[in-house]
Amino acid sequence: MPGHRSHIADRRELRADARHNRDRILDAAREAFAARGLDVPMAAIARRAGVGVATLYRRFPSRESLVTAVFSDQVAECAGAVDEALADPDPWHAFQTLVEKVCAMQVADKGFTAAFMTAFPEAIDFERMRRRAEQGLAEVVRRAKAAGRLRADFAIADLVVLMQANGGVAAMAGESAAVASRRLVAYMLQAFRAGSPAGNAAEDNAADNKAAERAVPLPPPAPLRLVHALAPQT
Amino acid sequence: MPGHRSHIADRRELRADARHNRDRILDAAREAFAARGLDVPMAAIARRAGVGVATLYRRFPSRESLVTAVFSDQVAECAGAVDEALADPDPWHAFQTLVEKVCAMQVADKGFTAAFMTAFPEAIDFERMRRRAEQGLAEVVRRAKAAGRLRADFAIADLVVLMQANGGVAAMAGESAAVASRRLVAYMLQAFRAGSPAGNAAEDNAADNKAAERAVPLPPPAPLRLVHALAPQT
Repeated sequence: MPGHRSHIADRRELRADARHNRDRILDAAREAFAARGLDVPMAAIARRAGVGVATLYRRFPSRESLVTAVFSDQVAECAGAVDEALADPDPWHAFQTLVEKVCAMQVADKGFTAAFMTAFPEAIDFERMRRRAEQGLAEVVRRAKAAGRLRADFAIADLVVLMQANGGVAAMAGESAAVASRRLVAYMLQAFRAGSPAGNAAEDNAADNKAAERAVPLPPPAPLRLVHALAPQT
Repeated sequence: MPGHRSHIADRRELRADARHNRDRILDAAREAFAARGLDVPMAAIARRAGVGVATLYRRFPSRESLVTAVFSDQVAECAGAVDEALADPDPWHAFQTLVEKVCAMQVADKGFTAAFMTAFPEAIDFERMRRRAEQGLAEVVRRAKAAGRLRADFAIADLVVLMQANGGVAAMAGESAAVASRRLVAYMLQAFRAGSPAGNAAEDNAADNKAAERAVPLPPPAPLRLVHALAPQT
């Protein structure tokens, strides 16, 4: 009923508020770490998040706990994106959404992951993360190809190329990076799609005959493994 | 006649040898400047080029003269690529070749241009170069669109996005950079092409009807001008 608010709704709202606060702190911290390094003053992070310093310290008693929370948040987001892709019944939608999410995360990251791994090289089981991401991605790619939606000559290494390319775009200052990244990713996804010129035309031969005529084979894939995208560049 | 060699042929061969030598020195110098900065020892450049130090100094009496020669060489190569594109009777071939050449140059450059512009900010009339490149590129793009070969929603800013992306790929170590760049550029050119999904389907409606059905509109172009690709990044 409008106007009526149950205790349950109140509690739910409180929890939502708290989570919203936590997200704001983590977002502000990630931005601050990316912009000014991992030793940025806690007060500056609180200011950026729009919360008091006391609130910040109540949630994250030390800088380490905050840095690690930001990183864990990103790892969880990344793993969640792979899991969602694996649960998606539409293999192309799964592939496309995963690529878009990973590239958007990379733009938001602004070098934070590299800084974290340099400061805390032993903090996470990187090998395990890498293997899990590699296996998940390989399965998403396999399904999209099997459904005839992803071109047959697509290579996993092409995702590494895209992430390196997206990293170049992400290095731009300001809002342009996000806009440019979305445009880059949209173009690449259209090129990855089966049925684009030189792509896998098995899906609809009649429509793609003309495209196949104009087909230009791709140059060989780059000799890159996923670790080249996940590990900080040297 | 086989076995007979005229004086003219000898002289021509001598000139070709000399030019070959000069090219080797300039290539070695560009690589050395890119890898070790503009103050790399002249002896290291001679060694890398496989010529004696005396030969190097006979051609380039000072470091400045060598640095400037390397840079002028690149500017001439770049201007030459635009001129060739403007002279090409096939508008798509012109566009494609120009994009491929510029991106290959960027990979070979390895940050040399940025280092040069930082060290000698007044050495060249950058404004004039920029205007000329912008006008030439705009004309190549206009022709490729008019011929229905380049998609109608392609924006000049997309070349800047590609160059930023290619810069990210070029930052990789070793041979992978060149291989990855060729793959990236091939994908992007296929996506730029009219007739790819969501592209300009005016050229051959029947063949592209199916593609148009699957069409996904591009996100808005990035608010970037060519100067963002030509100027060293900050």
